[in-house]
Amino acid sequence: MQPRRDRAFAPDELAQRFREVRGLSAALVARLSDADATIQSMDDASPAKWHLAHTTWFFETFVLRDHVPGYTLHDARFPFLYNSYYEAEGARHARNRRGMITRPTLDEVLGYRHAVDSALVAAIGDLPKDVLELIELGCNHEQQHQELLLTDILHLFAQNPVEPAIWPAPRKVPVPMPAPIGWIEGAAGIAEIGHAGSDFAFDCEGPRHAALLHPHAIADRTVTNGEWAAFIADGGYLEPRHWLADGWAWVRAEGVEAPLYWQREGEGWTRFGLDGRRAVDPAAPVTHVSFFEADAYAAWAGARLPTEAEWEAAAAAHDPQGGNLLDTAGPVEPRPSTGGPAFFGDVWEWTGSAYRPYPGFQTAEGAVGEYNGKFMSGQFVLRGGSCATPRGHVRASYRNFFYPHQRWQFTGVRLAKDL
Amino acid sequence: MQPRRDRAFAPDELAQRFREVRGLSAALVARLSDADATIQSMDDASPAKWHLAHTTWFFETFVLRDHVPGYTLHDARFPFLYNSYYEAEGARHARNRRGMITRPTLDEVLGYRHAVDSALVAAIGDLPKDVLELIELGCNHEQQHQELLLTDILHLFAQNPVEPAIWPAPRKVPVPMPAPIGWIEGAAGIAEIGHAGSDFAFDCEGPRHAALLHPHAIADRTVTNGEWAAFIADGGYLEPRHWLADGWAWVRAEGVEAPLYWQREGEGWTRFGLDGRRAVDPAAPVTHVSFFEADAYAAWAGARLPTEAEWEAAAAAHDPQGGNLLDTAGPVEPRPSTGGPAFFGDVWEWTGSAYRPYPGFQTAEGAVGEYNGKFMSGQFVLRGGSCATPRGHVRASYRNFFYPHQRWQFTGVRLAKDL
Amino acid sequence: MQPRRDRAFAPDELAQRFREVRGLSAALVARLSDADATIQSMDDASPAKWHLAHTTWFFETFVLRDHVPGYTLHDARFPFLYNSYYEAEGARHARNRRGMITRPTLDEVLGYRHAVDSALVAAIGDLPKDVLELIELGCNHEQQHQELLLTDILHLFAQNPVEPAIWPAPRKVPVPMPAPIGWIEGAAGIAEIGHAGSDFAFDCEGPRHAALLHPHAIADRTVTNGEWAAFIADGGYLEPRHWLADGWAWVRAEGVEAPLYWQREGEGWTRFGLDGRRAVDPAAPVTHVSFFEADAYAAWAGARLPTEAEWEAAAAAHDPQGGNLLDTAGPVEPRPSTGGPAFFGDVWEWTGSAYRPYPGFQTAEGAVGEYNGKFMSGQFVLRGGSCATPRGHVRASYRNFFYPHQRWQFTGVRLAKDL
Amino acid sequence: MQPRRDRAFAPDELAQRFREVRGLSAALVARLSDADATIQSMDDASPAKWHLAHTTWFFETFVLRDHVPGYTLHDARFPFLYNSYYEAEGARHARNRRGMITRPTLDEVLGYRHAVDSALVAAIGDLPKDVLELIELGCNHEQQHQELLLTDILHLFAQNPVEPAIWPAPRKVPVPMPAPIGWIEGAAGIAEIGHAGSDFAFDCEGPRHAALLHPHAIADRTVTNGEWAAFIADGGYLEPRHWLADGWAWVRAEGVEAPLYWQREGEGWTRFGLDGRRAVDPAAPVTHVSFFEADAYAAWAGARLPTEAEWEAAAAAHDPQGGNLLDTAGPVEPRPSTGGPAFFGDVWEWTGSAYRPYPGFQTAEGAVGEYNGKFMSGQFVLRGGSCATPRGHVRASYRNFFYPHQRWQFTGVRLAKDL
Repeated sequence: MQPRRDRAFAPDELAQRFREVRGLSAALVARLSDADATIQSMDDASPAKWHLAHTTWFFETFVLRDHVPGYTLHDARFPFLYNSYYEAEGARHARNRRGMITRPTLDEVLGYRHAVDSALVAAIGDLPKDVLELIELGCNHEQQHQELLLTDILHLFAQNPVEPAIWPAPRKVPVPMPAPIGWIEGAAGIAEIGHAGSDFAFDCEGPRHAALLHPHAIADRTVTNGEWAAFIADGGYLEPRHWLADGWAWVRAEGVEAPLYWQREGEGWTRFGLDGRRAVDPAAPVTHVSFFEADAYAAWAGARLPTEAEWEAAAAAHDPQGGNLLDTAGPVEPRPSTGGPAFFGDVWEWTGSAYRPYPGFQTAEGAVGEYNGKFMSGQFVLRGGSCATPRGHVRASYRNFFYPHQRWQFTGVRLAKDL
Repeated sequence: MQPRRDRAFAPDELAQRFREVRGLSAALVARLSDADATIQSMDDASPAKWHLAHTTWFFETFVLRDHVPGYTLHDARFPFLYNSYYEAEGARHARNRRGMITRPTLDEVLGYRHAVDSALVAAIGDLPKDVLELIELGCNHEQQHQELLLTDILHLFAQNPVEPAIWPAPRKVPVPMPAPIGWIEGAAGIAEIGHAGSDFAFDCEGPRHAALLHPHAIADRTVTNGEWAAFIADGGYLEPRHWLADGWAWVRAEGVEAPLYWQREGEGWTRFGLDGRRAVDPAAPVTHVSFFEADAYAAWAGARLPTEAEWEAAAAAHDPQGGNLLDTAGPVEPRPSTGGPAFFGDVWEWTGSAYRPYPGFQTAEGAVGEYNGKFMSGQFVLRGGSCATPRGHVRASYRNFFYPHQRWQFTGVRLAKDL
Repeated sequence: MQPRRDRAFAPDELAQRFREVRGLSAALVARLSDADATIQSMDDASPAKWHLAHTTWFFETFVLRDHVPGYTLHDARFPFLYNSYYEAEGARHARNRRGMITRPTLDEVLGYRHAVDSALVAAIGDLPKDVLELIELGCNHEQQHQELLLTDILHLFAQNPVEPAIWPAPRKVPVPMPAPIGWIEGAAGIAEIGHAGSDFAFDCEGPRHAALLHPHAIADRTVTNGEWAAFIADGGYLEPRHWLADGWAWVRAEGVEAPLYWQREGEGWTRFGLDGRRAVDPAAPVTHVSFFEADAYAAWAGARLPTEAEWEAAAAAHDPQGGNLLDTAGPVEPRPSTGGPAFFGDVWEWTGSAYRPYPGFQTAEGAVGEYNGKFMSGQFVLRGGSCATPRGHVRASYRNFFYPHQRWQFTGVRLAKDL
Repeated sequence: MQPRRDRAFAPDELAQRFREVRGLSAALVARLSDADATIQSMDDASPAKWHLAHTTWFFETFVLRDHVPGYTLHDARFPFLYNSYYEAEGARHARNRRGMITRPTLDEVLGYRHAVDSALVAAIGDLPKDVLELIELGCNHEQQHQELLLTDILHLFAQNPVEPAIWPAPRKVPVPMPAPIGWIEGAAGIAEIGHAGSDFAFDCEGPRHAALLHPHAIADRTVTNGEWAAFIADGGYLEPRHWLADGWAWVRAEGVEAPLYWQREGEGWTRFGLDGRRAVDPAAPVTHVSFFEADAYAAWAGARLPTEAEWEAAAAAHDPQGGNLLDTAGPVEPRPSTGGPAFFGDVWEWTGSAYRPYPGFQTAEGAVGEYNGKFMSGQFVLRGGSCATPRGHVRASYRNFFYPHQRWQFTGVRLAKDL
């Protein structure tokens, strides 16, 4: 993860941004108990406390330790506990044992945050530009963990037979069912994609480069819960011909028959969310589906998933700060569309593109450089951000990536087709 | 688990005993955070919160629900959450998912305990004798869980790289090394073993019956840490001929090279305990060894483990309330012997006897009857209680049992030999 | 495995016995293809070729290599391939990879047998008595492997969807259903059990010692297929209260609902055997049931399994050479009883006794001494031999042992009860 | 797998081709015993007998059964045994249980081949063109299985501690070490790739389409064993920064430290091959490396893997029938380069391209249509054919694919770099 180009930073503005990002993390855990924040519900997830500490370790290590003379580590044991996967930073605690660490407590981790925040804000006025860029990087890194924190805690609460709600359900205004999918014709030929300019972006978003688009159309909205229920009712999960071979093996091995967190209830479906178990809203975008499910749905619907270049070309004209993104702590979830085509927010949209380097991509040197390139096998690209993505974090060139069976993020489906 | 015979109960005395037992559980968790009390560190262990709630569920279900007219369940969701393995009591939460339940919180579980305690104490004066026997049974049941709670929480803290101490270390008085093992000749011929009389005992302790003892001697004390270190130094963990085949496979698969919680430190050994990591005391009884290790040690030492009949015959003359047993919450651990032969407390002593029914054993009817008989395969009997066993809980006829690879309890070794 | 006492050997008789035993092994594989003899169908089983080679390795190693001057190994690679578990004999091929060895071929292994047989018969006249005892031991060892060879090859053929028959089905004479179980009252008090005298026995069969029997009765025959079908029809596999906890977990995890090799066919049951798939004979003893199943059946029937001492005391008066035992290669299976009480042959009978050492048992020194003692944890004793046990191999004191979930041997059930 | 366009077939020529292909399969197994041909050495591999039967089943099912009136199945049990993964063709034997089928024997399978061959050749004159296309497809399908058969049997023999050679080693002519890698500059801009024209190709090779190439160069030969040994000597397998995260996890979990079948021997390396264990030839192309290893090597070498479009554009001018490809049964292996740049034969070359559909790709209808599309997740494309690929089978547009950890095929590495 590499700040991509030269640009000026106002330390005050960056300090303000830093405080806001750090404040949102604290708000997200305000309703969590010490235990809520400590448990690891599966190997893919991390405890909320770990997210809080790891993002702090990032600032402490790459900014304070490396660039603030005389800084003393808040606690010498924390680097071992809170490094994630930076091999260059030495030994670290096993990922799947993160849920065993009851001490330090949530309060102690919040104290760690406070100490690092104070030290960083005190130092920020004296830091050179390349270190300010590291702070900006750390803010973006923390936003990624904010989304993971929300989806991990949702996963944890879903394991509890009592199914507690973290937040009360928001009042819902009835919304008409969305119109049938409309198709937006994509421009064929050379398109420029990838990040350019001096604004922040992760290293994997560049270099900006020409991509060749073939004649195609892309849907003007994502697939809804109602449409997904029709797929299920039509035997979508029972018919191997819709599925990739690995997908079908996954369906059979895991007994998958609906999106994650769905349960049959009488004739209909409920879902578990941050506000507990509620009826599925047929007008809202389907979410918590894997790439395998997305691909099978597309096959069933006689369509396909868009490539990431098609998606980016279509999304480029839209405002990445608009849409159902994360602003404040609360029971976020995808919401029915109420306007024209939108490409940002609600659900991460699976593309048909494997997550691989762009032409000319170079891994950055050093520990920070481990960030993105090393994950470029076996995963698929998702685009557009979700209801759990902090507003301002996502952009048209943003590349998220997960394994094709994973579905605890707010993942959804937009169709495309050849013309 | 079956109260074994008729006997009179004074409700007041029983209420007093009930309050004491319940109070000790509360004391044991007084230093635990909500998170400490919630985590499950392995499938064999349970969260402290679960122990607190499950023992309460036992009283609520078998006493209040079944025998107190008009009693309303404290929370209708709890039977599903806190039943352990009583098949007759219906569906229950998967054992290996107990660590996912962050809500109810520790405080809410303590509230559950308080409510049930109040209801039970209020009702106790009106309950018939057979229900009073269930309360006595529940007290004994809770004492078993107190020991598990301590060993489970020790196991959890041992998973934390920070290795927190739960209690400060007690001041230690230097003690001379124990004299070499002396051999107590056992009486050969018919011995009566098993529980008799009207005092409480678990069903598996009876019927009392004749057992045939062959000429043998039994050690006058358990094996010490110092002796165990000599076994290690002599290659005890590297030499297959000392080991049962299953034991050797376990040693190799798990990479076992010392008792659980031991670490090499320079020339010596440290161990993790309820007071954190400390030097191993060579004079104290070795603990946290499996049956496989106990058996291998005995083979190395040219001896064998005692049978449970030999042990019980030898222990019958000793006071089961004497010795290093659990009185109050604190950093219990086995302590060096300072007197004559003692058979109770410090460490559970592995016997060479498989846990099987006594002649004439009958499983009790109904849900409570599931208690002991169903575990009678694959496990070995341990005798004598440990430093984590509540004083008053153990007796000469008491049969504890674990699988031969398990060693997170305070388990140790007493040798025997043929004459 | 230790010849137990002094006795005279006539080398000629022993050579004759050796040839007979070796000849039966060859006969058992006469219908097997090279492939049949090479595959390992599960970790518990071994290829037929391996049985043939391993038993030969035993004679070559402990007799020819150790006691015949100038003997050269037939093939220097074979000790690595064909040692089973004798740690003292050095490195060996992983047990669960035995099925990967297509070369040497079956013909080459038969050549190995021929060479070792010739060398041993040529040398036998000059060998001292203790080496003759090793030959006797090797013959008994080979008989054990003959039984395993038959049950392993049955297991292999059962994995083949084509379900080939190894031998044609024998002609069956209709037999009346056996009378209801009759109960033989056992003598209470001291009984002498275990091997005595100078005849061959395995080390675990001794020392002969006094055992204390409690008042009991033992069934005059084993449980039949018809009785077992009634257990199934009564929901025996669906009702946890009949089962040990480990047994119930096994039933659920493995989806067990009938003896191994049984399949529902219309209203009835078929079984797979050495003569292919055939109708289950309701009059014949049930077989291919695990200890868990045997114990659950006994609980359902209001009875229990006999202890090994009860069994041995009852069997002592019967002829161990009588009954349905293995004489020649062919489609052996348990057969309906046609006479009075019989304790030998048809099926190995699960006892309720864990496989543990007798009082005074000592493991022999050296590699041969690894034989039995090291398996003394986690297994249960079976008695009486089966239709696949070579006649002459079994006796009243004979202790077979398997893990409680294993059932690919010809294992069955005899009931007992307290009086 | 879809014949791609109209074209004329001469039945006689096709019959001749059919006979040649079928004959090569028979030649490949001529030195195998029944057991060699029966074992399955890992889940990814299949027994030789299965390859022989499955390819026969393909012709029997899609040609004889579907298109030859009055044809009777050779054996009604074979469709269940020998279907591979065609869901539309109904139930089939579990893939990982293929090694349990000792009957039918190798001879019986060869008889099955003979019968189907005769029936097909007899019928071929009367078959319409679309069925002739299915025969051509079946020939290509069988060629794929010929390569798998060779690599699977190599894997099986490698499991045998005796390490038998299948064929004697060919005489080797000393060859000078290859010159350092030269770089061929690739044309940037639009290139047409994918299959076009009426010749046979698999469905995944089309449609032919424009691809955009960025400035790059591609190596003029593949990486050699000598270069790989330098990578190892430089700590290539010990340094996480060279590796993808999934690759590093694989290296650690599997203890990988060299290509498959390599062993250290003194200062150097040996490898196991179809001619047994021999010294590694430093001049020959490295093989039996995974994508993870190929990618790590490229990172270590400061280069990258080519994309499949770059590879195809570079290879298009070369003769796909030239190079070290499979002509006759024997101990094939990659050989040192002796001429100019070659893109076909020796080793399959890992590309950096995930195996995904080309623009406009459509899955064919029906069982035959299951062939390629369903594998399009999680795998990487390999190009160019290997020493085990039948000559005439591969072409510039040919897309092979494996998971990134797999390496039992003859897989190797060609480097590329950005310009």
